[in-house]
Parts: sequence; C-alpha cells; structure tokens
Amino acid sequence: MKILDNINSPQDFKKIKKENLGDLAKEIREEIINIISKNGGHLASSLGVVDLSIAIHYVFDSPHDKIIWDVGHQSYAHKILTGRKNKFKTIRMHSGLSGFPKRSESEYDAFSVGHSSTSISAALGFAVARDLKKEDYKIVAVIGDGSMTGGLAFEGLQNAGHLKKNMLVILNDNEMFISQKVGAVAGYLAKLLTAGMAQKFEEKIMKTVSRFHGLGSSFGKFIKRVKVMLFPGMLFEEMGFMYIGPVQGHNINNLTAILENLKDIKDPVLLHVITKKGKGYAPAEKDPVKFHSVGKFDIKSGKIAKGEAVVTYTKVFSDTLIELAQSDSKIVAVTAAMPEGTGLDKFAEKFPDRYFDVGIAEGHAITFAAAMAAGGMHPVCAIYSTFMQRAIDNIIHDVALQNLPVVFAIDRAGLVGEDGGTHHGAFDLSYLNYIPNLIIMSPSDENELQNMLKTALNSNKPCAIRYPKGAASIGTALYKSSCILQIGKSTVLREGNNICFLAVGNHVETCLKASDLLLEKNVNASVVNMRFLKPLDVNILKEMLLKTKKFITVEENALIGGFGETVKAFLFGSGAVVECIGLPDKFIEHGSLKFLREKYGFTPKSIAEKALQML
Amino acid sequence: MKILDNINSPQDFKKIKKENLGDLAKEIREEIINIISKNGGHLASSLGVVDLSIAIHYVFDSPHDKIIWDVGHQSYAHKILTGRKNKFKTIRMHSGLSGFPKRSESEYDAFSVGHSSTSISAALGFAVARDLKKEDYKIVAVIGDGSMTGGLAFEGLQNAGHLKKNMLVILNDNEMFISQKVGAVAGYLAKLLTAGMAQKFEEKIMKTVSRFHGLGSSFGKFIKRVKVMLFPGMLFEEMGFMYIGPVQGHNINNLTAILENLKDIKDPVLLHVITKKGKGYAPAEKDPVKFHSVGKFDIKSGKIAKGEAVVTYTKVFSDTLIELAQSDSKIVAVTAAMPEGTGLDKFAEKFPDRYFDVGIAEGHAITFAAAMAAGGMHPVCAIYSTFMQRAIDNIIHDVALQNLPVVFAIDRAGLVGEDGGTHHGAFDLSYLNYIPNLIIMSPSDENELQNMLKTALNSNKPCAIRYPKGAASIGTALYKSSCILQIGKSTVLREGNNICFLAVGNHVETCLKASDLLLEKNVNASVVNMRFLKPLDVNILKEMLLKTKKFITVEENALIGGFGETVKAFLFGSGAVVECIGLPDKFIEHGSLKFLREKYGFTPKSIAEKALQML
Repeated sequence: MKILDNINSPQDFKKIKKENLGDLAKEIREEIINIISKNGGHLASSLGVVDLSIAIHYVFDSPHDKIIWDVGHQSYAHKILTGRKNKFKTIRMHSGLSGFPKRSESEYDAFSVGHSSTSISAALGFAVARDLKKEDYKIVAVIGDGSMTGGLAFEGLQNAGHLKKNMLVILNDNEMFISQKVGAVAGYLAKLLTAGMAQKFEEKIMKTVSRFHGLGSSFGKFIKRVKVMLFPGMLFEEMGFMYIGPVQGHNINNLTAILENLKDIKDPVLLHVITKKGKGYAPAEKDPVKFHSVGKFDIKSGKIAKGEAVVTYTKVFSDTLIELAQSDSKIVAVTAAMPEGTGLDKFAEKFPDRYFDVGIAEGHAITFAAAMAAGGMHPVCAIYSTFMQRAIDNIIHDVALQNLPVVFAIDRAGLVGEDGGTHHGAFDLSYLNYIPNLIIMSPSDENELQNMLKTALNSNKPCAIRYPKGAASIGTALYKSSCILQIGKSTVLREGNNICFLAVGNHVETCLKASDLLLEKNVNASVVNMRFLKPLDVNILKEMLLKTKKFITVEENALIGGFGETVKAFLFGSGAVVECIGLPDKFIEHGSLKFLREKYGFTPKSIAEKALQML
Repeated sequence: MKILDNINSPQDFKKIKKENLGDLAKEIREEIINIISKNGGHLASSLGVVDLSIAIHYVFDSPHDKIIWDVGHQSYAHKILTGRKNKFKTIRMHSGLSGFPKRSESEYDAFSVGHSSTSISAALGFAVARDLKKEDYKIVAVIGDGSMTGGLAFEGLQNAGHLKKNMLVILNDNEMFISQKVGAVAGYLAKLLTAGMAQKFEEKIMKTVSRFHGLGSSFGKFIKRVKVMLFPGMLFEEMGFMYIGPVQGHNINNLTAILENLKDIKDPVLLHVITKKGKGYAPAEKDPVKFHSVGKFDIKSGKIAKGEAVVTYTKVFSDTLIELAQSDSKIVAVTAAMPEGTGLDKFAEKFPDRYFDVGIAEGHAITFAAAMAAGGMHPVCAIYSTFMQRAIDNIIHDVALQNLPVVFAIDRAGLVGEDGGTHHGAFDLSYLNYIPNLIIMSPSDENELQNMLKTALNSNKPCAIRYPKGAASIGTALYKSSCILQIGKSTVLREGNNICFLAVGNHVETCLKASDLLLEKNVNASVVNMRFLKPLDVNILKEMLLKTKKFITVEENALIGGFGETVKAFLFGSGAVVECIGLPDKFIEHGSLKFLREKYGFTPKSIAEKALQML
C-alpha cells in the first residue's frame, strides 16, 4: 500500500506524519518518472520541485491559499497532490490533463500559465484583490531563476515591493542565480532571520566586518565579501522584499519549518531555495537539458526513444546559419534562453563570440539586435512564435520603424502539439502582417528554409521567417549551397484549371498531396507555394484567376488577420470563390500534432474534400 | 552676438571655453522655451537635461561616439547642438524636425526612439557590434528614472552587466530613484570613486560603520543606513555595473570632469545624475507635470493657451469610471505611469486604494490586472494604444486565454498628431482582432464611451475599448446614467440606398457629415455605427446588402488586419463592392492631427468623393 493511495486532496495529505513526507516524495517521483517515460513531458523541472511542492501544500491551504507556478511545467507533483493523481496518466494527451496549471482544469490551479515570468505580477494581483475584499488567504508564487531574468518579473517585483503586500515569492534556483559560494553563510543567516534573531545577527555581522578589516584585504575584495555576507539578496531587498536564503530545497522538514516561520510575515518575502533539476532520477540529474522537455524514454537505461530519423526545420536553420556565418563575419545570433530548442547551441559552439543568450528576455533580444544592426552587424533572432508575442513592440518600434535588417527566425510557428494553448504558434502571421517595412516568409521545405535565410540576410530589410515544429523532410535533399529568392515571388508547383491551392509553409506539401487525391477524381488543381505573406505575390493571384475562380488558402495560423484574409482582401470583387483553411477563433487545446492537424482540417484528405465541395 | 550663433556642429562647440558653457546653456534654454511656447512639445524634460546634453557633447565625439536618448523627448538641446539649430523652429511640424531622435533625420541620432526603456538594450547592441568589428567608439545611453522602471531596461542592464561591455549608462534622475536623503554622502563617494581614491573610501566607511554601531541604533535602521552608505547603487552593482553617483546634474563643469574620468573605464558604468525637470524656466520647475507635454503657452506668465473648451474622450472615460466605481467597489484602475494622460489622476483622488500606477510597465499592468480579475475584482487598464503594443502577450496569455474580465481602455487610438510615427495608435484593431475571447469596441461619441465602459464592466469578459486623442464632443450632452449595450450589435444612424458607410469610432461623425455632402448631390447614404469590431455585427451587413452593394469602411487604423479587411472577409463573394479607408502600410509621419486626417482621407469631403467615384 502506497502513501499516495490515500491522498486525493491536500486535506488528505495533511494527515500524513511529517516523517513520512520523504517517502511520499519518493512515490511521487516514481509516478512522474513512470508516466512521463510514456507520455513525454517536462521531467527534470518537475522532479526538481517535488519536495518543495510537498512542503508548500503541507504548510498552505490550497485552494483557499493561492499557489502560483511560474511557467508551470514544474507543476506535476502539484497536480498529483491536488486530486489529479488518477488522471495523471493522461497528462499532455488530448482531453487529458494539461502539462501546465490551468484554471479551467482545477480550482487548485490559481492562475493559468505556460509563458515565463508572470507569477510575481499574478501574485500581486491576487494580493491586492484579497486586501480590497478583506479576505485572508495566503499567496505563494514559485518562480525559477531563469524566469527571474525576464523583465516582467522585475516589473512585478518592483511593484510588489512598493505596495508592500503580504505575499511569498519562492525563487526556485536550480542554476544558482546568486553564486553558490555564498550558500553556507547565507543559509545560516536565513535561519537566524526566520527565527527572528536579529540581535544576534547584528553582533555577528560586526564581528565579521572587523575581522575582514583587520586582515587588510584589498578594497574590491573587501566590498564584495561584506556585500555578500551582509546582504546576499540585496537585489531583492532594494526592491522592497525581505530576502531569505538560500536554503536547501530537498529537505522537506527544513522547508516546512521555514515556510511555517514565513507564513505570518506581513511584508513581501522572497525565499531563495536551491534545488536540483531531475532530482531523484540519475539520468535526468546528469543531463537535465536532455530531460527538460523529453519524449518517451526507457526508465532503466535513461535512453530516450528515437522516432524516425527526421531532419527538423530547426536543424536546417541551424546548419544553414552556421554555413552562412562562415563567409559572413557580420552574422550574429540571439536566443532568449532557448539555445537547444532553436538549434543555436550548435552556432554557439562554432562562433561563441557571435552568439548571445540574453535570458528569458524576448523584448531585449529584439531591441539589442536592432542596435547591432544599426552598428553594422547582421543579427538573426531565433525565438518561438508564441514567445515572440512578447516582443511585438520591439519589432515595430525598434526594428521596423528604423527599417533595420534584423532577421526573425520564428520557430514553432503553427500547432505545437502536447504543450497546448499557451504554446501554439497560432498568431504570428496575424501579429506581423500589419507591421510596415517587414518581409514575411514561410518555407515549404528544408531547401526553401536555406534559401529564405540567405535571402533575408541579403535583403538589408527586416525579415521574418516562420517555420513549424518538427520534421522538415519531404525527401528533398539539402542543396549544397543556398540561393537568393526574389522577394515577394511565389512559385507554381502544379498547374490545373479546376481549383487553385494557395499554400503557406509546410502545407504546400499537404496541398500537393491533396491535389494527388483530386487527380484520382479527375480534378486538376493548381498548387502555389506562396513563400511570402508580405509582400504578397498579387501577380500570381491575377494569373491564377485566368485559370480558375476557385481558391483554397491553407495556413497553420489564426484565420483572423492571416494569409487567407489577406488573399480575400486582394481578390475581393474579382468573382473568385475563396475558402480559407486555418485555425478558428479560439485557443487551440493540447493533443498530438497529428491529432490536432486532423481535427482542424490540415490533411490532404480534408483539403481535397473541401475542394470537391466547392466544385 | 550669441554663443549659439557660432555653433553648427559639436565640433564648433568644442572650441568654446569651459567657462562659457553656462552661458551657452542659458541661450539653449531660451531657444527651447521660445520655440516650444509656439510649437508645443516636451518642455520640462528637455529643459532638465540642457546642462547634461552640453557636458556629454563636450566630452564625447558624436556621431563617432553613439549617444542614445531613452524615450527621446528630452533631446531638444541635443538637436540644437548637432546642426539642427536653424531647423529647430520647425520641431513637431509636418516636414519639420521630429520631436524625438530619428536616424533618418540626422547622423547624430544613433537610435530612433519614442517608447521608453530601450536605451540600455540599444547601447549594448552598439557595444557588441563595435567590439566584433574592432571599432573604437564610445557609447552613452541617457535614461530617466521613470524609464528605469520598465522591464526592458532591467533586461538590458542584466545582459549588459553580464557581457561587461564598455558603455556608459546615465541615469537621469529627476524624481530621485533612490531616496534623495542619500545624496550628500553618495555624491561625495562618487567623487572619491571617480578619482580612484578607493583607499580613503574604505577608511571612511569603517569609521562611519563603527559610529553607527556605537550609537546602538535598532537593527532595521542600522542595516538600512549601512546599506545605503556603503552601496547606494547596489541594485546596479548586483547587475554588474559600476555605480557612480548621485551627482548634481546642472553643474556643467563638474559633469564634464566626471564624464572625462569615466570615459576610459572599460566596464559598464552607471552614472546617476540628479536633474530638475523644467530647470531654468520657473513655471515649468513649479509644475513639471503641466509642462511635460505642453501646447502653446505665454512665456512671461506661464499661462498655457486654451484651445476651444472641449470634452475629451479621456475626460469622459475618467468621469464615467469614477461614477461607476461609486456603486461598484470591485472596480480598480491601473495605469502605466500615465495618470494625467489617461485621466486616472482623478480616479486616484477619489479612490486612492483602488488605483495603481505600476510605473512604465505595461506588461505587468496587464498580468497584474488579470490576477486581480481572477481574485474577484473588476480591473480597468488605461493605456495608450501605442504603448499597449508592449503588452500583447499579456493580453493573449494572461487575460484572453483565461477569459478573465479585464477592461482595456485604449486611449490615443488612431492618429495622435505631432508626436508622430512612434506614437500613433495605428495598429490596435489589428493586434487585438485575432485574439480569441476578446470583445473589441470603439465609441462614436462621449455617450457611447460611457455606455461601452458600463457594458464592458458588466460583460464578465475581456473587453477592449479604443478611443482617440482629443475632443469627443459632437455636441452630445452626456447621459446622466450610462446603459448597457448589446454585445456585437451595431446601430444604423441613417438609411439610404445608394451606398453604405460602415464606420468605427470617431469616424461615424465624419461619415454622417460625408452623407450630408452626398445628399446635396442627391445621393442617399446609409451610415452604420459599427460599435463592435469583435464580435462583428454580421446581421447588419446582411441587412445592408439588401439595400445596396456599395460599401465604404472607415477606421483610423492600419488597413491590414483591421476592420475593413474583416468586413471584406465576411462580404467576400456577396457581390458587394467595398472600399476601405484607413491607414496605409507605412509608418505615418508627424504633423497636426488636422493635417494628417486630411492627408489620409479622413474628411467628410474625401469620403464623399470616394463614394461618388464608386457610384
């Protein structure tokens, strides 16, 4: 009989004796490892906070108290502890649990999340609401050291420190935001402080200060040591937070004791907790990056199941950029804390001086790149479509308005699958299309991505290239060298007089297959690879109009403000009949890419059917 | 003969003797006051940095060295010193100088700007480019204490501190970012540090520390004093910057001496300078808020010329919100450092506990509001259209995805006039339209704004209301009490069978006038006040189609992705002929509102002419 078997809510779990919490943590880790080895998911970060999750739920009373997870990919233990144990095996599956906290899924998920750095702002919002309504719950935000690099977290900290609301921010530090060397002293200070032993603390400080002075250490060293010893969290103290830490994050009893101490402090408190990513599963501890977001794997060996050997768009982007950078020393690459996801890790190995990981700071990434362009470089910013939503003003105000040649490599455009609504790249064509001076393109295969990257870097204009998650391979061998495309020029892949497919990006292939299906019914379809959303190839539209009046546009983007509506705006009044295939006006749920693409009509069969309906 | 008469470039100006720089500052202030009293503009902030601008240009060699102004509304002295003295009288006029630094205007403007908090990211971009290209220029960013509250500034600081590039950030502090009380001590420290007198500094510290200890001051007080005395700029030091300051910002000789000292430090340096807004012009010193962005004024009396007494949309919003908040205690209001501009200053007077100025932090404003809504409040975020561009992901990810009832009061939607390309609210309909769950509306007059605010607050949905700068009054008396509109329902103001105007917001009035003009030519036009962009009233479109096939849409927004294209997408294939009036696909220049509206076709006459062409 497992301890976990008796836990269906945080209330059940509070009945457990403190000394058994360690065993419970073990069981939860086993459950997470077991399920994620089958479903895939964010393993390392969730394993890292199992003990912290237990301690928080042991001390606080969720859902009355609000627990807010930053990013939320570390919330698996939280989900298991809050009535979702039995459903946990469905995590990340369509109609199953979300991989992130979600208000609509559970009352224990106080705030829905997926993007980083929102938790402090959210905690403050709850705190203000609570106080105005004269309610009395506690608020705990858990934020990783990575998320703490985002400007939004700073804005939240600063405002929270100013308003002096009762809230606890737990900095879950698995990379040591502040140098690990201060751990021992500061950990000691933390205990002293939480026990209210301020007086003793002062004496201690004075002794230490005199000792250092006596040693006659050099000025710089002296200042640094005093600073760190007196104020390990000055950054947070300056912001108006009481800083406690760092404390070890895998000792549950210690954590619960500290949380109990902090529970009744009325001011904003920042508790700095040190955890280890992948804790409790050796392969993940050893390679937390590999096990950050992982597919199926073998628990015993830690071997990750290999799918078919496919070339991803990400890899083609990475290889091509490296190749181009070899002959153009002005090329620099920028990532916002996603070196592996964007493929820029390989670029970093080759060109460490020309590679910039700015942290989870998409806005800065773009403005920084704009100035590098103004300074004569050729910057390429590789950022996921969903995260680029955070830098739209930087694209408008710092890049496009100055017409600076920055290249936006927008990865994970369109559906992304299991990560769901917060992560789909559903909007980029819509949020980019209205920006003046911008060139927007999308490759239909790996060769075209090569060509588009070269084209963008040679255009001397702001350029966005959007490409999807996953396999690029449609069996096209990579060109040895890339060529420069004519800006705004589409290409006709197949000519037919019955109907015309106008396709963007990866769905050029889908349309080619749809036209194969139609051929079986003696329907001849044209297939146009549009290549550019902006400038739109209006000549090809006019040309195609001479062949047929029936068009189907296909894009993996919101229909509103996207490619289809742009085509409609141009073909308005031409007598053409245009059907648009794209994402409907709602947030798309999570599920496998294959499932979602079928559901939303991105298959050769459903496109062919739509064509037949039109004829 | 003025000193200024001989200065046509920073090179000329370096020939001036140091002792005459003070007189030059006086002349520049006179010039600024004189011109701005006629043209209007950002007076107080520009007067505040005249001495600093002189010192910077005296020490650094622009355009070789890059001087980057954050926001840029303080750059008037910079413009006068860099070859634009004679053109200065055209500032903010169409075809004249821009009110902000602009790369296309002058080689001395290293980076175009208008929005806040970009300068540190920009300085770092230049620094990286310089070092990679092995060039040798200096980089100076000047950023106000307000801009320093933006998350982007934090992201920039953090990345710059990490990369340790040679760059100087001048924190132009006119509100004392760090408490003014530390000025004397810290100013002294600054001088010591710049002169490299570290040894003496250490002794001084130890003496002071012992003295405080001897006094037996309480723990908290003690810590605070030591912190501030030892490390006035710890926040910046923690970020990897060398902090110097605060220093007085109106003593040019002192400033030039310090800048000379700092010029050759290879690490990132933050110089904290204290200035007074409006310096040198008594009325502006006395009321810097009034003289921040000012219209014409009388120099002698400081009296600001009053235009016609008009009711602005901003005022109607403010009055209505206050009225509604009296009976709904859940209403809270959020501004991002624009209490006066958004009219929320009045709300703050009435409901100080329910009013939140979060600093220049639009992203946080929205996420904070989302959580207040989750906590049961009814938040209203009043932010200018152009600045809301910085919070699009927060709207998508934190508000719309959770379907939380936050109201976005989007002021300055459409053209704004003299502030130009960085400030026009040209894109909001486009950047909001594709967001699921969002209701988007725009009032045609003051009564409708009242009603829309009430409607939004009662909808229990995320709602955006966009309204323009300036006068709302079309002679409609304000309703005593507002009523709730039916969501997604437009209203037909005039019925005619020849053509139909579909109008958004303030251009309902323009269309009514256009229809008057058409009547003179015996043309009967329908005029529909659309009220909602989303959900679009498709029933009215169907109904109107029964009367006429000719439509003109009018919106003061980019045509791409806006209202007109949405109408076209719906009416596609209906046989309707639709002409769209809106902003073309370019950044719109500065000029008076009247001039720009004429130029871009937003007049009754030009709309009537377009109608006649269609008939």
